[in-house]
Amino acid sequence: MSIATKDIIIEKVKNSKIDQVDFDNLAFGSVFTDHMLVCTYKNGAWETPTITPYQPITLDPSAKIFHYGQSIFEGMKAYKDKNNDVFLFRPLDNHKRLNISAARMCIPQIPEDYFMEGLTTLLNLDKDFIPTKDGGSLYIRPFMFASGNGFHASPANEYKFIIACAPSGAYFSGKVKVLIEEKYSRSANGGVGYAKAGGNYAGQFYPTQLAIEKGYNQVIWTDDTSHEYIEEAGAMNIFIRINDTLLTGPTSDRILDGITRKSILEIAKDQGIKTEVRKITVKEVVAAAKDGSLKEMFGAGTAAVISPIAGFGYRDTDYDLPELENSFGERLKKIITDIQYNKSEDKFGWRYQVKS
Amino acid sequence: MSIATKDIIIEKVKNSKIDQVDFDNLAFGSVFTDHMLVCTYKNGAWETPTITPYQPITLDPSAKIFHYGQSIFEGMKAYKDKNNDVFLFRPLDNHKRLNISAARMCIPQIPEDYFMEGLTTLLNLDKDFIPTKDGGSLYIRPFMFASGNGFHASPANEYKFIIACAPSGAYFSGKVKVLIEEKYSRSANGGVGYAKAGGNYAGQFYPTQLAIEKGYNQVIWTDDTSHEYIEEAGAMNIFIRINDTLLTGPTSDRILDGITRKSILEIAKDQGIKTEVRKITVKEVVAAAKDGSLKEMFGAGTAAVISPIAGFGYRDTDYDLPELENSFGERLKKIITDIQYNKSEDKFGWRYQVKS
Ligand SMILES: Cc1ncc(COP(=O)(O)O)c(C=O)c1O
Ligand SMILES: Cc1ncc(COP(=O)(O)O)c(C=O)c1O
Repeated sequence: MSIATKDIIIEKVKNSKIDQVDFDNLAFGSVFTDHMLVCTYKNGAWETPTITPYQPITLDPSAKIFHYGQSIFEGMKAYKDKNNDVFLFRPLDNHKRLNISAARMCIPQIPEDYFMEGLTTLLNLDKDFIPTKDGGSLYIRPFMFASGNGFHASPANEYKFIIACAPSGAYFSGKVKVLIEEKYSRSANGGVGYAKAGGNYAGQFYPTQLAIEKGYNQVIWTDDTSHEYIEEAGAMNIFIRINDTLLTGPTSDRILDGITRKSILEIAKDQGIKTEVRKITVKEVVAAAKDGSLKEMFGAGTAAVISPIAGFGYRDTDYDLPELENSFGERLKKIITDIQYNKSEDKFGWRYQVKS
Repeated sequence: MSIATKDIIIEKVKNSKIDQVDFDNLAFGSVFTDHMLVCTYKNGAWETPTITPYQPITLDPSAKIFHYGQSIFEGMKAYKDKNNDVFLFRPLDNHKRLNISAARMCIPQIPEDYFMEGLTTLLNLDKDFIPTKDGGSLYIRPFMFASGNGFHASPANEYKFIIACAPSGAYFSGKVKVLIEEKYSRSANGGVGYAKAGGNYAGQFYPTQLAIEKGYNQVIWTDDTSHEYIEEAGAMNIFIRINDTLLTGPTSDRILDGITRKSILEIAKDQGIKTEVRKITVKEVVAAAKDGSLKEMFGAGTAAVISPIAGFGYRDTDYDLPELENSFGERLKKIITDIQYNKSEDKFGWRYQVKS
């Protein structure tokens, strides 16, 4: 299968809705651009992708997405530099990960050219929606789900691959407070935690609501067997700085292999920051908080970028993190966003310019 | 909130499609009745339920069902006796479990009267679709999902509760061969395995496909920590008979609390069959298969009723189960289906007649 930009069937909007977007007050992922990409998998093959006005999807009540959670997604961003050129960050890694998720959820693989040609063609149509205000970006949501019908609990025979985009502001406003969770879990050994599968997120809502009620913003998950090891947060991988070493847990079949996480690790090494990828116990983090060697914690993810953590709760005790002069998180955030917004040299080869 | 049958807004089909249903060759859950029940949750409350012709659902591409797997369901059956009277089996337990699933997935509770009045009104309209052929029944699928919009990974602000029905034949044709799984897992400690959440099912598809490729029909899940204990199958709880004792594992936050399972336990006790609800190790089952004390295994669930297991695979060895004269599974299946189809006295009070 192979597709070129010129093959994509395009139906443009008659009237853009860009004038209705309040670019000075963007929430996260709640207003959408003029167009969307839709590609249907049927009879064992992907049909020609189409770009249409952003519009509702119509499905049979027995479509398996409603019953069996056969759905996956990706999260990406498009950034504009001061010349209004458009950039993506490591988009091929999102494509690869989408297919890793697809394999685990029995969803057909989407070819790279369908993904990349579809995405860049869509961005060229909707690039006026990319915010230029500091910290703003166009959040891009490629997703795939089972559109085939029937109540039999087995993979569907039809799927949709869709890309929709939302001009967005920050995911979190300000520093976040996290709760280290010991009762509920995000994923099982041998489960689907490493996939960006829809069900992984809904499963987090209830424990997260409980944490929010207690005054936290997010849950930090621990392993479901012993609850002794730090895993990740709802939509971010977690970094912990003890003295001058930056720690993050290893990826596994329970943890999403974050693109921000692996980029941060490379940048940190390049910056001469000592990093360690190893299992991190809750115990050592609590001990470090008590003896003052815990300097900072932050979450890392496409939506959240680098989100500093103000403190964490564990077994009814709150631990505050100190204000720092020389924050690794701040430094790393500046370096990664400078690459993303084309403000600095791209020494790692991560920037991807969307050619018009 | 309270609703009566007369409050439900009904729009009937102009032409029934019942003539298109081949009642002699029914698959499972692939043809649907004339009508469906739809109820929308909005602004913090359930709106008036409506019954409409069975028809497509239209949703925004950002509806959270597509992204975060916030969906749950139930599986029930309607049975007809020889007088064409219509019966349900313990329907209030399905309602209760739907709300248990809802709580875990941050979906609003559906009041009992919305569920029961909606269901019985729908069944009265579509009762001609209930198969009368031996082993046939109307499979009923109540489901709820997040129809509210936005890419923020948090609970939706709008939901749909829908009931759709499918005249159905047997879920499995003939005895099933199962594979005891040691690598992949169905659910985590502290996870959502006890909920009928959509994502639990999609997560099973891939390991089940692998098992099917090896010649099995279903996977028997083991606990994700040690893989030493038998949990349940894809859509059935598991019973194991060693000598004359009928064993099944205890429910937990990883296992669905099956209505068939608990009914079987009660019937077995009433029949003087010795039952034990306790953790079952794979080791003891393999040892029992080897020394001949393993007499039978069967799955129990609404869709599968009681499905005899012909044999199981474990670590590249296949273990066949003997043909039995006095099968507990057969005996229990006859008793439970006689209750369901109103062929016997209902000594446990489980039958629920749908009044017309
Ligand atoms: C569970 C989870 N962990 C981590 C991440 C961070 O991954 P990435 O940096 O690729 O966005 C995300 C979101 O994107 C996520 O959903
Ligand atoms: C995972 C799972 N286990 C067990 C069962 C059996 O439950 P019940 O007997 O209530 O149908 C089902 C299906 O209904 C199921 O989906």
